[in-house]
Amino acid sequence: MKNFKFILGLGIAMMNIAYGQELKSPNGDFVMDFSLSKDGQPTYQLNYKGKEIIKPSHLGFEFKTNLNQKSFEWNDKSEADKAKDLANFLSGFKIIDTKTSTFDETWAPVWGEVSKIRNNFNELAVTISQPKTDRKMIIRFRMFNDGLGFRYEFPEQKNLKYFVIKEEHSQFAMAGDHTAFWIPGDYDTQEYDYTESKLSEIRGLFDKAYIGNASQKAFSKTGVQTALMMKSSNGLYINLHEAALINYPAMSLNLDDKNLVFESWLTPDALGDKGYLQAPFNTPWRTVIASDDARDVVASKMTYNLNEPSKIKDTSWIKPVKYIGVWWEMITGRGSWAYTDDFSTVELGVSNYAKAKPNGKHAANTKHVKEYIDFAAENGFDAVLVEGWNEGWEDWFGNHKDYVFDFVTPYPDFDVKELHAYAKSKGVKIVMHHETSGAIRNYERHLDKAYQFMQDNGYNAVKSGYVGDIVPRGDYHYSQNVVNHYQYALEKAAEYKIMVNAHEAVRPTGVARTWPNLIGNESARGTEYQAFGGSKPNHVTILPFTRLLGGPMDYTPGIFEMDIKKMNPNNESHVNSTLVNQLALYLTMYSPLQMAADIIENYKRFPDAFQFIKDVPVDWQDSKYLEAEPGKYLTVARKDKNSNNWFVGNVNGVTPRTTKIKLDFLEKGKKYEATIYADGKDAHYKTNPQSYKIETKKVTAKSTLDLTSAAGGGFAISIKEVK
Amino acid sequence: MKNFKFILGLGIAMMNIAYGQELKSPNGDFVMDFSLSKDGQPTYQLNYKGKEIIKPSHLGFEFKTNLNQKSFEWNDKSEADKAKDLANFLSGFKIIDTKTSTFDETWAPVWGEVSKIRNNFNELAVTISQPKTDRKMIIRFRMFNDGLGFRYEFPEQKNLKYFVIKEEHSQFAMAGDHTAFWIPGDYDTQEYDYTESKLSEIRGLFDKAYIGNASQKAFSKTGVQTALMMKSSNGLYINLHEAALINYPAMSLNLDDKNLVFESWLTPDALGDKGYLQAPFNTPWRTVIASDDARDVVASKMTYNLNEPSKIKDTSWIKPVKYIGVWWEMITGRGSWAYTDDFSTVELGVSNYAKAKPNGKHAANTKHVKEYIDFAAENGFDAVLVEGWNEGWEDWFGNHKDYVFDFVTPYPDFDVKELHAYAKSKGVKIVMHHETSGAIRNYERHLDKAYQFMQDNGYNAVKSGYVGDIVPRGDYHYSQNVVNHYQYALEKAAEYKIMVNAHEAVRPTGVARTWPNLIGNESARGTEYQAFGGSKPNHVTILPFTRLLGGPMDYTPGIFEMDIKKMNPNNESHVNSTLVNQLALYLTMYSPLQMAADIIENYKRFPDAFQFIKDVPVDWQDSKYLEAEPGKYLTVARKDKNSNNWFVGNVNGVTPRTTKIKLDFLEKGKKYEATIYADGKDAHYKTNPQSYKIETKKVTAKSTLDLTSAAGGGFAISIKEVK
Repeated sequence: MKNFKFILGLGIAMMNIAYGQELKSPNGDFVMDFSLSKDGQPTYQLNYKGKEIIKPSHLGFEFKTNLNQKSFEWNDKSEADKAKDLANFLSGFKIIDTKTSTFDETWAPVWGEVSKIRNNFNELAVTISQPKTDRKMIIRFRMFNDGLGFRYEFPEQKNLKYFVIKEEHSQFAMAGDHTAFWIPGDYDTQEYDYTESKLSEIRGLFDKAYIGNASQKAFSKTGVQTALMMKSSNGLYINLHEAALINYPAMSLNLDDKNLVFESWLTPDALGDKGYLQAPFNTPWRTVIASDDARDVVASKMTYNLNEPSKIKDTSWIKPVKYIGVWWEMITGRGSWAYTDDFSTVELGVSNYAKAKPNGKHAANTKHVKEYIDFAAENGFDAVLVEGWNEGWEDWFGNHKDYVFDFVTPYPDFDVKELHAYAKSKGVKIVMHHETSGAIRNYERHLDKAYQFMQDNGYNAVKSGYVGDIVPRGDYHYSQNVVNHYQYALEKAAEYKIMVNAHEAVRPTGVARTWPNLIGNESARGTEYQAFGGSKPNHVTILPFTRLLGGPMDYTPGIFEMDIKKMNPNNESHVNSTLVNQLALYLTMYSPLQMAADIIENYKRFPDAFQFIKDVPVDWQDSKYLEAEPGKYLTVARKDKNSNNWFVGNVNGVTPRTTKIKLDFLEKGKKYEATIYADGKDAHYKTNPQSYKIETKKVTAKSTLDLTSAAGGGFAISIKEVK
Repeated sequence: MKNFKFILGLGIAMMNIAYGQELKSPNGDFVMDFSLSKDGQPTYQLNYKGKEIIKPSHLGFEFKTNLNQKSFEWNDKSEADKAKDLANFLSGFKIIDTKTSTFDETWAPVWGEVSKIRNNFNELAVTISQPKTDRKMIIRFRMFNDGLGFRYEFPEQKNLKYFVIKEEHSQFAMAGDHTAFWIPGDYDTQEYDYTESKLSEIRGLFDKAYIGNASQKAFSKTGVQTALMMKSSNGLYINLHEAALINYPAMSLNLDDKNLVFESWLTPDALGDKGYLQAPFNTPWRTVIASDDARDVVASKMTYNLNEPSKIKDTSWIKPVKYIGVWWEMITGRGSWAYTDDFSTVELGVSNYAKAKPNGKHAANTKHVKEYIDFAAENGFDAVLVEGWNEGWEDWFGNHKDYVFDFVTPYPDFDVKELHAYAKSKGVKIVMHHETSGAIRNYERHLDKAYQFMQDNGYNAVKSGYVGDIVPRGDYHYSQNVVNHYQYALEKAAEYKIMVNAHEAVRPTGVARTWPNLIGNESARGTEYQAFGGSKPNHVTILPFTRLLGGPMDYTPGIFEMDIKKMNPNNESHVNSTLVNQLALYLTMYSPLQMAADIIENYKRFPDAFQFIKDVPVDWQDSKYLEAEPGKYLTVARKDKNSNNWFVGNVNGVTPRTTKIKLDFLEKGKKYEATIYADGKDAHYKTNPQSYKIETKKVTAKSTLDLTSAAGGGFAISIKEVK
C-alpha cells in the first residue's frame, strides 16, 4: 500500500493492431492478442517468449432465458428465436471501446511468505456490444510478468439487469498434449490424490482417480479442478486458476480432449443453474500463470494481486498461529469425537447427555485438554485445537442431518469456563471448532450466538468444517449459494474479530488479501488422509503448484509416527513421508496457521527433531524458491519476519535425490549456525521413515550445502544468526 | 386447560373386531374401521350416521432409498430388490399393538371465536410392523364429534433413523361425485378464486382456474389444495385438511377422478424429495370433518384441538389488533411503495437514496403516516400498518432477487424515531412490515436485527410477506424447508414478544394454539385481489369453510369505494361486494387482527356505516353460526369478549336472499338495542354497491329479525345491551 504509479493512455506496452488488440507484460515476455472472430466471438491468445501458451480461444456466456416466466414453451417461433438471441452472449459482438493502463504498486500483506508484494501489470479493458440485443460487457485483461488474468464485467445497462448464467464459456486452448497434475472435476470436494498424466490420458484415468468421499459429484470424465498445473514438452510451466471468487460459483475445467481445449465449467445449484447475477457485476478473474522456470509459478502472487485490498481497517487482532490439538487421536480412530455410545441418533435439546454413559474414548475432556495446554505452553505454541467438545457428534456423519450442532453446548466432561481460565493462565488460546456437517442454514441460524460464545470464552480463531453433502439439499460445496455462505461466515467473523480456518470449503482464490482474517482453508487432501489409507508420497511436491496458489492450506503436518497401527490397531494406514519430510512441510507448505498435528507422546519420543518445529516461525519477511519441479521436489528458503534467521525446507518425491543448496540468500558479512535435519542414509518413506540425522554447521552467504533427500523425504534447516 | 378426563382401556366407544379395529366418536355418530388388507395395507373407512364419508382407503408411505449413496444403479438384482423393499412402506404390515383411550378437556385460547374450547375424542393408536424390513410405525386416530383426525408416528427404532419421503400415500376415497369448492393444487400459492364443481369436472375446469400469479406451480390437472370443502348429493358436508404442520411439507390432494379417490400429494423440494425425517417423528394430522349441518364444519375447532397446547408461558403481550394502514393506495396503484424512479435496480448500501429524486407518489412518508396515526387515535384503532417504509422497493418484485431488503433502513422521508414518538403519544402502534420477496435466507440473516429494531422502536407486530419465488431457488413456498422457515421466524418472534401476520406463507393448520403470537396469515385470495381485477362475489361465503379452518385470515376488509378507477384512473377493477357485505366480514371472517383497509377519505364519506367498524370488537367470548351454506351464505352471531354486546354478520352469494334471524342467543331477560346495517333495496355488488340503510330496533332474546341480502351483499348488526 505504499508506492504506486498509474499511467493512463497508450504506453510502449500497448499496440493497437487493425484487427485486434495487443497487450504485453511489463517486461515484454508475455504477449496477448485479443480480437473478434468473423462471427463476432471474443477471442484471445497468449504467447510467452515467443512460444504459444494459449492458442486462439473464445470467451463468453450462455444465459438462461425464458420469455414466459413459468415455462420454456414458446407461443410462436419468433419468441423461440428471441430466446435464442437472448441466451447467446458468445458471438455477434463488436468492439466499441478499448482502454489501456499500467499499474505498479507495492503492498504489505498482514501475514505471508513475504512482507511486501509488488502488483505490476499492463491492463486492457475491451468493451464489446451485441447490437442484436443491445447488451454489452467489458472484458478486462491484466498482464503481469508472471502471466495473464482476465474477467468479465457487466456494467449497469438497460437490457441486462437480473440474469441467470446457464454456462460460462471461457476457453483455454492448449498448445500441446501437456503433462498435467490433476484431480477430478467435482462440485463438492478436492480431497483427491493428484494424477500425473498427459491431457489425452485424463479420460482413461478418470475413474481410478475418482475415489470415494463423504460428499462428491463429478460432472465429466475429462473434468478437472483448478488450480491446474501443467508442463509442456518444450519446458513451459502453465497454471490455470481463478482469483477473487465472490458471490459466483467455483470454476472447474472441462477438457475437449480431441482438440485439447479446456473450457470453464461452473458449479450448478439445485436447479442446474450456474449463477444469478445483477448488473453491475464483475466475475472472478481467470488466470494463466506461466514460465519456463517452475519457481516462478510456485512463487506467483498474481492471485492475491487480483483481489481487492484489505477491507479490514484494524488488523491487530489477526496473528499467525502455531498450534497443537486434540484431533489426530480421533482421525486415527484411537479416540472419539463422540461422548457416548448410548445414542444412535441425537436430538439436540432432547437427548439427555447428563444421563448418558461416557464411552471412555472421548478425547475432548477437560483433563486431557489441560495436558495439551500444558504442552503448548511449555513448548512455545500459541494454541490448542479441540474437536469433539460439543453435543451432537454421535450421529453427525453421513446422515445429511439439518439441526446437527448448535455450536455452544459442551459435553458434560468439557468445562468451558475452567478451560478458558486455565488456558488464559498459561498464555495459550484454545482454537474453536465448528463442524457444520454441510448444514449451512443451521450454521447461519446459530452463527451470531456461536461467535459471541467464542468472544465470551476467550476464543479468537475457529476451524470450521463442511463434511458431508450440503443442506439445503441440491446445492454443492462450490455452488454460488454456498460460496456466498463461506464469505458471509468470514465477514461476520471479522465483525467479531475472529480468524477463520475453513475446511471442506471452496479452495481459496486470494480472497485473504481482502479479508485477512481468512488465515486458512483445507480444501484439498490434507494430512488426515495419511490416516485414511495414505496419500502419494509426492503429494506435497504438487500442492504448492496447485492448491497453494490461491491461499494457504491448513495441511496439519508434523506426524512423527508413520505406522498408524500404533495409534489404533484397527487402522493399517501408513503415513507416506519420512519424519524429516514432515519437518520440511513447515517451510514448503506455507501457512500462517501451522499445526504440530501428532499426539504429544510422539513428540516426546523425538525431542531433537521436535526442536525444529518449536523453532520454525509461521510468518515471513521474505521467501526464495531455490528449486522446484512439480511432482518431484521443492526447496524454499524463508526469512523469519521477526529476526534475521532463515529456514530452508525441501520435500522430495519418490526418487532419492541429492542437491547443492547455495546459501547466497543470507546476509553478506554475517555469521550463521545452520542446524540441518536430514533423512538418514537408509531412510525411506515406507520402510524406514523415522531414520534421520541432525548436524550443525557454521555457514555464511558464501556457503553451499550438499544434501540428500530420501524417497518421500527431504530436509529442513534452521539458520540462526550468531554474533 | 381446566378440566380433563383421561380414561385408558376399552370403553364403550371402542369395539375390537376380529379382522379390524373400530373407533367411534363420543356421541357415536362417526364410526371408523381400521384393518389391514390381505396384502397388509393399512386401510380405514369412515361412516357418519350410517352414511359413507370415506370408503375403504389405504395409508402409508413410499421412501426414497439408494443403497449406493451416490447413485441409483444397483450392483446386482438383489440390491435392487432390497431397495424396493426399503422403499415400500405401504404394504406387508401386521398389527402388533392397539391402544385405545378417551380424552376430554376444555382449554382457553388466548384469542378466538370463543373463550373456551372443548377437546373431546376417542383415540385408537395402532402399531403396525413390516416384518420383511423390521420397521414399524404407529397410526394414531382421534375421533371427535365433528370428525376424524389421524397421523403417522415413527418411533425410535433400529431400522428407521434418517429417511427420505418420496411420497405419502394417504387416501380419502369419496363415496360419490360430490360438489367441491376447490382451488388448484399448487406448491407456491393459494391466491385463486374458488371453483365450484363436481369432482369429475375438476380436470376440465383446471386450466381456467389456474390463473397467473407471481409465484405458482401446479402439479396435476386434478390437484387441489386443502382445506377442501365438499357437499354430497345426500346432504353431507365433508372437509379434508391437515393440522399441526410442523417441519414437514404441506399436503395437497390429487384426485383419481376415475375412482373418485383423493390421495395426499406432498410439496417437494428442489430435488423432488418430499421430506427428510429423523425418527422419532410425528407427521401432521390429516383431518376429515363432516356433518349433515354445514354450521358444524365452519364452527369446527378440530384443527386447533389436534395441536399442542401453548408453548408461550406469558401471553400478556399478545393482543388482538384493529388497524388501518398506508397500504390500499399502493395496492390500487394510486401511490407507490417505492420512493424514487431513479433506480431501475437497487444495490442496498450502494444505491444512494439521499441523492435520489423522490417520485412524489411514495405513500409511506412521515406526514402521511401521521395522518393515519391521528385517524386511528380519533377512531379507536390500535395500530397503523405502513408498507413501503424501507429501502429496496424499486426492484423488489419479479426479479428473484436475494439481498432485496435489510428490514432496518428507512427511506429518507420516513422518520422512524419521530413516528415512534408520535404514535406513542397518541396511544397507537405502528405495524411493522417485512416483505421478504421470498428470499428466506436473506430474511433469516437479518431476522435478529430486524426484530431488535422493532423492539427498539416500539413495534410489537409484524406483517411479513413472501411475494415471489423462493430463494434458495428450487424450494417452494410449501416445501419442508420453507415451512420450517416460517416456524423459525414465528418462534424467534416469540422470543422478542412479537406478533406475526405472515402473508403468502403456508396456510395455517392450527399452529396458533401452540404459538398464539401467530395472529394471522393471508395465504388465500384476499381483498387486494378486488383491486387486481376482482374476486367472485361469493368468495367470502366459501373461505370460512376452507381457508379459515386452520386459523384466522388477515382478509383486510372494509372497502367502501368499489370503483377502483376512483382510486387510480388506470385501474378498472371493481370490488365485487356491497358496502354492507364489507361490514359483515368483520364477523364472518373471524380474525384477531382486523384491518379497515380503505383510505381514510373513503371512511369520512360514510361515517354512519363506518361506525360499525369502530364498534365491532376483534375478540370474542362466544360465537354461534346461525345459518351456513358454502358458496351461498353464512350468518354468525358473536359475543364481545369484554362486554355483553353481540354482533351479527351475514355474507351472501350471487342470489338475493331473505332470511329470518332469531335472536335467541341473547341473554333472557335483558334488553338490547340492535343497529342493523343492511343493503339498500336496489343494492347489488356490481351496479349499486354503496346503497345501504341503517335502522335501530329494540330487541330481546325473543325477537326475530327479517333481513334481506343483496347479490354479493349481506347485513351487519350490533346489538348493545341497554339498561
